[in-house]
Amino acid sequence: MPIYKAPVRDARFIVNEVLDLPALAGKPGFESASADLVDAVIEEAGKFASEVLAPLNASGDAQGCQRNEDGSVSTPEGFIQAHAQFREAGWATLSAPEKFGGQGLPEVLGFAIEEFMSSANQSFAMYPGLTKGAVAALLAKGSPEQQERYVPNMVSGQWLGTMNLTEPQCGTDLGLITTRAEPQSDGSFAITGTKIFISAGEHDLAENIIHLVLAKTPDAPEGTKGISLFVVPKVLVNDDGSLGERNGVSCGSIEHKMGIHANATCVMNYDGAKGWMVGEENKGLAAMFIMMNAARLGVGIQGISQAEVAYQNGVSYAMERRQGRALTGPKEPEEKADPLFVHPDVRRMLMDGKALTEGLRALALWCGLLVDVSEKAEDEKEREHADDLVGLLTPVIKGYGTDKGYAVATDMQQVWGGHGYIVENGMEQFVRDARIAQIYEGANGVQAMDLVGRKLAKNGGRAIQALFAVVDKECEAAGPDERLADIATRLGKANGELKAATMWFMQNAMANPNNAGAGAYPYMHVAGIVAVGLMWLRMAKAATAAMDGGADDPFYEAKLVTARYFAERHMPQAGALRREIETGAEAMMALAPEAFATA
Amino acid sequence: MPIYKAPVRDARFIVNEVLDLPALAGKPGFESASADLVDAVIEEAGKFASEVLAPLNASGDAQGCQRNEDGSVSTPEGFIQAHAQFREAGWATLSAPEKFGGQGLPEVLGFAIEEFMSSANQSFAMYPGLTKGAVAALLAKGSPEQQERYVPNMVSGQWLGTMNLTEPQCGTDLGLITTRAEPQSDGSFAITGTKIFISAGEHDLAENIIHLVLAKTPDAPEGTKGISLFVVPKVLVNDDGSLGERNGVSCGSIEHKMGIHANATCVMNYDGAKGWMVGEENKGLAAMFIMMNAARLGVGIQGISQAEVAYQNGVSYAMERRQGRALTGPKEPEEKADPLFVHPDVRRMLMDGKALTEGLRALALWCGLLVDVSEKAEDEKEREHADDLVGLLTPVIKGYGTDKGYAVATDMQQVWGGHGYIVENGMEQFVRDARIAQIYEGANGVQAMDLVGRKLAKNGGRAIQALFAVVDKECEAAGPDERLADIATRLGKANGELKAATMWFMQNAMANPNNAGAGAYPYMHVAGIVAVGLMWLRMAKAATAAMDGGADDPFYEAKLVTARYFAERHMPQAGALRREIETGAEAMMALAPEAFATA
Repeated sequence: MPIYKAPVRDARFIVNEVLDLPALAGKPGFESASADLVDAVIEEAGKFASEVLAPLNASGDAQGCQRNEDGSVSTPEGFIQAHAQFREAGWATLSAPEKFGGQGLPEVLGFAIEEFMSSANQSFAMYPGLTKGAVAALLAKGSPEQQERYVPNMVSGQWLGTMNLTEPQCGTDLGLITTRAEPQSDGSFAITGTKIFISAGEHDLAENIIHLVLAKTPDAPEGTKGISLFVVPKVLVNDDGSLGERNGVSCGSIEHKMGIHANATCVMNYDGAKGWMVGEENKGLAAMFIMMNAARLGVGIQGISQAEVAYQNGVSYAMERRQGRALTGPKEPEEKADPLFVHPDVRRMLMDGKALTEGLRALALWCGLLVDVSEKAEDEKEREHADDLVGLLTPVIKGYGTDKGYAVATDMQQVWGGHGYIVENGMEQFVRDARIAQIYEGANGVQAMDLVGRKLAKNGGRAIQALFAVVDKECEAAGPDERLADIATRLGKANGELKAATMWFMQNAMANPNNAGAGAYPYMHVAGIVAVGLMWLRMAKAATAAMDGGADDPFYEAKLVTARYFAERHMPQAGALRREIETGAEAMMALAPEAFATA
Repeated sequence: MPIYKAPVRDARFIVNEVLDLPALAGKPGFESASADLVDAVIEEAGKFASEVLAPLNASGDAQGCQRNEDGSVSTPEGFIQAHAQFREAGWATLSAPEKFGGQGLPEVLGFAIEEFMSSANQSFAMYPGLTKGAVAALLAKGSPEQQERYVPNMVSGQWLGTMNLTEPQCGTDLGLITTRAEPQSDGSFAITGTKIFISAGEHDLAENIIHLVLAKTPDAPEGTKGISLFVVPKVLVNDDGSLGERNGVSCGSIEHKMGIHANATCVMNYDGAKGWMVGEENKGLAAMFIMMNAARLGVGIQGISQAEVAYQNGVSYAMERRQGRALTGPKEPEEKADPLFVHPDVRRMLMDGKALTEGLRALALWCGLLVDVSEKAEDEKEREHADDLVGLLTPVIKGYGTDKGYAVATDMQQVWGGHGYIVENGMEQFVRDARIAQIYEGANGVQAMDLVGRKLAKNGGRAIQALFAVVDKECEAAGPDERLADIATRLGKANGELKAATMWFMQNAMANPNNAGAGAYPYMHVAGIVAVGLMWLRMAKAATAAMDGGADDPFYEAKLVTARYFAERHMPQAGALRREIETGAEAMMALAPEAFATA
């Protein structure tokens, strides 16, 4: 059985020492963010994840979800009880607004906890995770009446939520949607159409499911400008809040997938289902993007989560399994062989796992804090700056984060050798589960285009300039400390590659937009290297501060070494990626379709 | 249902125009290698693979193998018939020596055909594939009597073979083997022990299975110096060649694996089974390495094979599926959306697939030809040169080839978006099947150490110097042709990075062997980039030759463009990898085990 223990110490270090959340405690919106509370929440969430959710991960994968004859869907054994415990313990309400029954804790804490839950059981964590996105959309665009009717029960976890975008003929290109919404005399709409790949579309964890559905009204314009958003409850909600009759929406089938077997991925049939418009007509895409952006960060965190749990199991195997001898001579001559841990190539994979998982965690949590700041800071410029960075970092965390999550999961399976390929050892599940995160909520190529095509250009490049400035400033500030100097120098260089690539796009994308498209993916990775590199500089700095303050703790030593490892082993890639970008689109786009046919 | 069509044209191009096999026709050992025969064999093998084996790939995955109560193992439906057809068509005997009933065709053809069979159905192809390795070991080390007794029926495919190395406590480190071989009065040995992960260990495709088994005789020295190789038939073979009684070897269970479900991966129990020593006592590892080296090249080809079949399906989806519009404006305005093919980031993945699959195919086939030359050339120096290159390229083809095979399979699944994650579409099977190739026959980290720790140093670096010289010479020769100049310049630069990294090892590995271990993996990838880059230069050159000869065929244009793409997009990585290598082992090896524990 795979192990999982939440990385409580590391999350606390990042939240308290690197991001210094307690310094904000007491400011509006951060009232409750004291170090004590932060520590307690992280500790308890970690326990819940490892004790309640992790034991259901392998069994949930083996069992999967079942669609019953009556169209209902059964989740794997233990999920109903675990979800009840999840709600009772208050994990569903943590960062939700107090007005609707939430606890109003900062988003940064919500992100930390999302990672733990998803490491322990990604399929399980998706049920409340998708609800969070649906709540965000209702809070941003729903009428006060809609908010009152649906949000409190969604916050409490009594009802869960979904996002219904994809249809058989449209995934990335939502302009192709054909689901219809016919206005009814009572102000509601009759929704008809088929949605596919609906995560948590139907299940037995909650008494109601609140679907947020994209559809087109009869005279809507073509394409994405004619999409509206609707709230469609599985069970209609009476005016007094009690549950009424079953709505005309049902699960047609459950998909057979490579992974996340315990999450019910449904084909949803809408057959004149009663729905109500959320926000303005034909402005559904903007509303959906509120959910989507939250969901994209959540998916980035899933990438980290699978890297983390796979890493822990890679480490434990590398310590226990004995095979061969250290290149420098036997380390444990009294044994027949040394542990795998002595082999540099095993250590390479473990250090990659450590550097990427901890670095990406810091990045996700920083982004969580920026979400808080963008919503709660008193100063408008501060809110704007935070919002710029959140917009810029979201596709990076989603794209680079899930690519590296998959790479780490694959590497940790590799540490296990042949045993990693065996189902019962659990390593291959991490790989299969991690794989989906690169695909859904906008495939990673779409993230790269969002970054390069949308986020770079927005407001005259304000967001990327803000990132450049943050990195430059922190590199400069680190300069005099010789423990940080090399990391800062290498980060400055990687930042220079990112600047050069950005400049190249400015000079070459106008003439041929394909030049931006051709370089978008490597650009996303350069941005990931710089952003995670910045986190490593910060973590190294926090470590030196603690050491200067008298802390004698190998934890801080390890942060310095790992920062150096990331700088030496990952940052050089930025230069190669920049060179790839600068070759442009020509060779990439030169061949006719026939040239790809097998003959 | 996924599609598969054997890349007949490309294989012919490589064999005939790039490697110029027909020029060797008539030389000793190449008597039958005429262009006509080459073309016919490739054509027919392609048909067989796509018509007979491919249709059983998805069903075999879904069904898997079954261990029955009596210990027998059933392969999936259709496998018995397909194997009978495989034998009848003569595919089993193709490159086997005529003396034992083979057709004596060059290995380079055998390699081409192995790829087709494995693309169509990797699990199926493993059954005859492992037999080939077992035959190679018997031919090299077996007594004339053993050869006569076993080899003809193995060549014909009437019997199949296996390799039995791994035990629960030993995978990479074969010194830890505990299976015992007790000498018997009749000259045989009684073999007792448990072997795990035995591919094709038990099945219903052949009337006998010839196991080659590593075990230790009673007074054998400790470690790898005390291992001997034994031939242990499932059914004993009488002196007249007829089958006798069942031997004491049986399948204890079948593993549940991430992929290659249709190949029976068995726990094999040897319970005093009758075996005969192959080759000298305590020299079993050397004998096993003969099988292993053949198997490693076979596994490299598996990597290519999964990349190819995934690529074909990625291409077909990219042509059919419509989503979004080209960045440069609608390409097919009469349709609601353009095909995925217009998007640069989709094209990036397709071009990577094309460049890597075709490049690796050429590399594998070159290596196949080098195997032929190393065995058959009349000139000793020529044989030695070829043998050096085969030894050097084997870990590169296995390690880099399967890493890229997995990467391409993953990318092609990505092209399919959410539909790629659905089992019924078949893309995820390619990923799961491709994954094993990075793990077995020596995990890729072991390949990297074989390359850096063994192959570089052997004979004073003769092999790597030979590769440097070949690359330099061909870059120089290409220089004057402006269609090749940029490719040659970039390849020369990548070769320079490989030289620099090699030099760095020479200067730094003595002081600390971990410096070699720490850089081995990126080094293997630099070597892969250079070796595949050399193939692209050769293919580009062959294309220009054909064009200069008047050929007006987009196939040749595509070769030039793809060569350029590989040069622009893959070769820059060599520099970054070299820089990583030069950071050495310090940060990688600095942390104590405690630093990896979750707190």
